[in-house]
Amino acid sequence: MQSPYAIAVDLGATNSRVALVDQRGKIIKKLRRPTPREGARGTVITAALTEMIQKLMTTVPPDTHFQGIGISSIGPLDYKKGGPRNSPNIPFSFVPLVPPLKAQFSLPVLLLNDANAGVLAEHHFGAGKRIKNLVYVTLSTGIGGGAIVDGKLLFGRGGNAAEVGHLIVDTTYNLPCACAKGIGHWEAYASGRTIPRFFSEWTRAHKEKIEFNARDAETIFKKANEGNAMARAFLDELGRVNGRAVSDLIVAYDPELITFGGSVALHNSNVIIHGIKKYAEHYLARPAITITSLGEDITLLGAAAAVFQK
Amino acid sequence: MQSPYAIAVDLGATNSRVALVDQRGKIIKKLRRPTPREGARGTVITAALTEMIQKLMTTVPPDTHFQGIGISSIGPLDYKKGGPRNSPNIPFSFVPLVPPLKAQFSLPVLLLNDANAGVLAEHHFGAGKRIKNLVYVTLSTGIGGGAIVDGKLLFGRGGNAAEVGHLIVDTTYNLPCACAKGIGHWEAYASGRTIPRFFSEWTRAHKEKIEFNARDAETIFKKANEGNAMARAFLDELGRVNGRAVSDLIVAYDPELITFGGSVALHNSNVIIHGIKKYAEHYLARPAITITSLGEDITLLGAAAAVFQK
Repeated sequence: MQSPYAIAVDLGATNSRVALVDQRGKIIKKLRRPTPREGARGTVITAALTEMIQKLMTTVPPDTHFQGIGISSIGPLDYKKGGPRNSPNIPFSFVPLVPPLKAQFSLPVLLLNDANAGVLAEHHFGAGKRIKNLVYVTLSTGIGGGAIVDGKLLFGRGGNAAEVGHLIVDTTYNLPCACAKGIGHWEAYASGRTIPRFFSEWTRAHKEKIEFNARDAETIFKKANEGNAMARAFLDELGRVNGRAVSDLIVAYDPELITFGGSVALHNSNVIIHGIKKYAEHYLARPAITITSLGEDITLLGAAAAVFQK
Repeated sequence: MQSPYAIAVDLGATNSRVALVDQRGKIIKKLRRPTPREGARGTVITAALTEMIQKLMTTVPPDTHFQGIGISSIGPLDYKKGGPRNSPNIPFSFVPLVPPLKAQFSLPVLLLNDANAGVLAEHHFGAGKRIKNLVYVTLSTGIGGGAIVDGKLLFGRGGNAAEVGHLIVDTTYNLPCACAKGIGHWEAYASGRTIPRFFSEWTRAHKEKIEFNARDAETIFKKANEGNAMARAFLDELGRVNGRAVSDLIVAYDPELITFGGSVALHNSNVIIHGIKKYAEHYLARPAITITSLGEDITLLGAAAAVFQK
């Protein structure tokens, strides 16, 4: 018999992807389309994903063995009902995923949030193979994380362990977090969405005149690359903030490896890793700190890993 | 046959205790003596503990069934060699525990650090029964922690997961930690040893004249109890610091319960819990936050729990 495949689903706020993944983490076939935002209920997303899976299945030989469906989803997740609930990034209160897909395809369906998918992917297919203690952090529009300790993915009371974007990393600039639950959260400083605001607060605190229009994070990284001193000084301060968060991850989980993904990390890997290595403390043994080699596919691969680890 | 007992050992920097504990967490018999500090090597401690265990065994009927020996120890621990290594609090580089006690008594011997013992005790015998996600924090001379997530005690790469005393909680006063690995660590502000220094830095930052001689933490708590406004304002700031650390614990582990022990928490339970509840953020579901009901015996009970959980 041929070896089994996983059907991997990545439900993102902007795009959704479905892929066929083999046991070694190779993506055999991948489909992508914008995540539906129009419609009365979240079931429009369920229907779109179902259609994509069906289409994917017709592209492979009919005797292909599917071991299950893994779903990496934006959060927060309602694990009992099996789908994202009250996600700030999509216009539906709930998207039913596990029960309808299980019924439709008669396969095991596994649901996890995208950061947990990331750490599972790293553990099964990436730099975390044979490593029992690792953390994955996505620096993207927001900041999320997943942790594997003693070989087990941490879940916690509501499946939200390692919500690392809400670690407190600063009591100087006191930036409020979009979560509205506190100030000084990592996500309020170092995500793609918040870096421009941190930049403007930093310039104000240092009474610097902003020399360029920093409307998005990429502009600041680009200016630094071009040698702009102000952008460089700011990115050093950003490294300090990232370093504090990583210091906290080290004492929380005692990991051997911390890997970073997400667009901010993937597109600015050198400066991000440099800042973290410069400022992270290591009260405990120093873990390896790297950018993931799995790129944008990491969530899809994590969804596949969830299927194969069952 | 009678139900089995655990022999519980608590190796502390100042005192050592050995106890006979039943499966329900009842301490049947307890011996205590100062931890030896004189002698050429750490084996003087091994010998003292061996003698205490022998003495304890003679006080119960000869047909008593001992299930094993659990040891709660000051850290850091060398789990491979089975004992504390380079502990800053005792004058020996290494104390061999697991191999000699195993050989001497022909019983399973389990070793864990005191904060991990604390969370195990809470899980088996305390408020954490039937709770799968909990954190125990000891506020004592130093600050330590242990976490159980998804029903499993977190260990990590070197057994140091949840070394929560070294979470970064402040970037305003920037107090250096005695660990010499960083600044702003929780332990540098809120342990019995460091509270007086934080108090003096706080008064300086606020340009307040110190109205009383705060040579130890207890004096400050006492002054606050007597109504002293400066002591009260400082303890409010201490609550802010403790609240930040607890906010980080919540996002790191997503627990249902966080309990506090250690002399600082046990002797000042109301003001400590009040400050934490006032300032802890809850991005995730709010956990119960309490002082442990197991008191000073919590480490002994944790050592016993390690035996029974095997």
